[in-house]
Amino acid sequence: MDVVNLSLEAVHELAVSVLTSNGMAHDHAEAIATVITAGQRDECHSHGIYRLLVCVNSLRKGKLSGGARPEISHLSPAVVRVNAHFAYSQLAFAQGSKVLVENARRLGIAAMAITNCFHFSALWPEVEALAAEGLAAIAMTPSHSWVAPAGGTKPVFGTNPIAFAWPRPGKLPFVFDFATSAIARGDIELHRRAGKSIPLGWAVDEAGAPTTDPSAAMHGAMLTFGGHKGSALAAMVELLAGSLIGDLTSIESQKFDEGAGATPCHGELLIAFDPEVFGAGRRAEGDAYAEELFAAIVGQGARLPSQRRFEARARSETNGVFVSAQLLADVEALIPA
Amino acid sequence: MDVVNLSLEAVHELAVSVLTSNGMAHDHAEAIATVITAGQRDECHSHGIYRLLVCVNSLRKGKLSGGARPEISHLSPAVVRVNAHFAYSQLAFAQGSKVLVENARRLGIAAMAITNCFHFSALWPEVEALAAEGLAAIAMTPSHSWVAPAGGTKPVFGTNPIAFAWPRPGKLPFVFDFATSAIARGDIELHRRAGKSIPLGWAVDEAGAPTTDPSAAMHGAMLTFGGHKGSALAAMVELLAGSLIGDLTSIESQKFDEGAGATPCHGELLIAFDPEVFGAGRRAEGDAYAEELFAAIVGQGARLPSQRRFEARARSETNGVFVSAQLLADVEALIPA
Repeated sequence: MDVVNLSLEAVHELAVSVLTSNGMAHDHAEAIATVITAGQRDECHSHGIYRLLVCVNSLRKGKLSGGARPEISHLSPAVVRVNAHFAYSQLAFAQGSKVLVENARRLGIAAMAITNCFHFSALWPEVEALAAEGLAAIAMTPSHSWVAPAGGTKPVFGTNPIAFAWPRPGKLPFVFDFATSAIARGDIELHRRAGKSIPLGWAVDEAGAPTTDPSAAMHGAMLTFGGHKGSALAAMVELLAGSLIGDLTSIESQKFDEGAGATPCHGELLIAFDPEVFGAGRRAEGDAYAEELFAAIVGQGARLPSQRRFEARARSETNGVFVSAQLLADVEALIPA
Repeated sequence: MDVVNLSLEAVHELAVSVLTSNGMAHDHAEAIATVITAGQRDECHSHGIYRLLVCVNSLRKGKLSGGARPEISHLSPAVVRVNAHFAYSQLAFAQGSKVLVENARRLGIAAMAITNCFHFSALWPEVEALAAEGLAAIAMTPSHSWVAPAGGTKPVFGTNPIAFAWPRPGKLPFVFDFATSAIARGDIELHRRAGKSIPLGWAVDEAGAPTTDPSAAMHGAMLTFGGHKGSALAAMVELLAGSLIGDLTSIESQKFDEGAGATPCHGELLIAFDPEVFGAGRRAEGDAYAEELFAAIVGQGARLPSQRRFEARARSETNGVFVSAQLLADVEALIPA
């Protein structure tokens, strides 16, 4: 397969060009280009420039606003809501997170609900941004009802990612970001595009039978990771990042889509914690225990969750990124002549 | 195996007698008896009267205070800390949760850190108590370093339970409470007592090899559920319910135990969310979407996480509980003559 080497700047510029030439406002395009570039840089291929195909598809279908202004509401001194007004979530996050950070520093714990947003990006760029402010953070979103509950075969849940970051003074943060489905939907789509079969355990077909066919999986139901425990977590994401914030669950987001196959529209919940407030004089001990924990993991040859991604980041910052020529051609073709 | 039928009142009285006759203050004993009775009632056998054996063992080893007064500190308007001063956690929860509930209702989100507590109970009684106040809640604790990280074979994490409750107006809440280890440590101990082997996937032996021997598992390392995702969650629990609140991680709690094999001493983090504040006028929609979600799960023949436990509760409230005669004799023998 032919591969093209691009600088991070070139990826960013490509993303901005693709988005603005398809009608997106420049500040929205910049915010999205930043997370797409970060995804490509960290070799999260399903969240890199591949996502531009999905973005433009959604923009062209017309449900998504390319220019709506995020509207910030202070629901309480601890809870900020940002109504994205049916634009993508990234600009809403960029603007609302300033309030979230202030609230968390003042109160120790604070939350941000992003509502009425189209959502496609990984959550780690957001929890990493909060960790860079010295906060621990959790983020979660529903998506579309693609995933069966444990003990069932019919889709109910979204892929419902949960991300977490812990700030490590002077180091890259401890970060994880995983789908509560056995695998991200984008990975099934990438298998389909590549003509590869998927492992058993990712999905069932429309009849409820285990399948290795990515197309059958897309039309059947994905499975959660970790059996009933992963299924319970997927439900928690629906309840906290859907029902709690008065926004759509994955079932409702799927209905809202009306079969368009656009990027899911729903909400997102972020929770930020300030270790200074919680630690109450024992911050140094807390940090030391955290570092002892990481050393005990790495010291036995196991990986920290973000370790491979950070290694990819270091490579990309030196060498740029490598993208399939076919994918790049598909993405460049999105720019109107 | 001989089985004895006991009323819920009898279980409660037995627990109070066992604890007070071993030197525990009456209010502590009542708070603990309440959760032990709830555990037995819901047929969570590893959290029922079996736990009295562990409690008394810890009391007699002398590290644990049977009478310390919980000390409440307001770290911020959103964060309350209750220092249990090396008593069990239950009385600290009972007293501090009143503040947590008030803070959550005022601010929408609030947290409680219980510190310096010995901890043995399931977390669902606590998140259920918060749901009874109309709040959604998350609870988590470290324990002792018994569990290997994904990719490793040496113990680092505790069994690190995460519990969640969602209030359902007029109904029992949606509740889950699971160890991030593949299984609760109490279940391995119950297998050992019963002379049964354990399934592969629960643990490795001291050499790092998979084992079905519960004794080898207790001396080796337990495994997390769900591979690297469960392992990531276990780390999050260490960081939020340990480092963040300036209390012990499972590694540090194990050191503090000094080989005594007592109940783990560490902290606990609870987060409460008020759907009235977050919903901001859309509470009814949020509740309706939640009920639609539950109906979609139950309607395809899958279970809600707490369904079996609630069925057991209904049985026990009618018929009382059934306890092995041997276990009952072992527990009664804890009362000094």
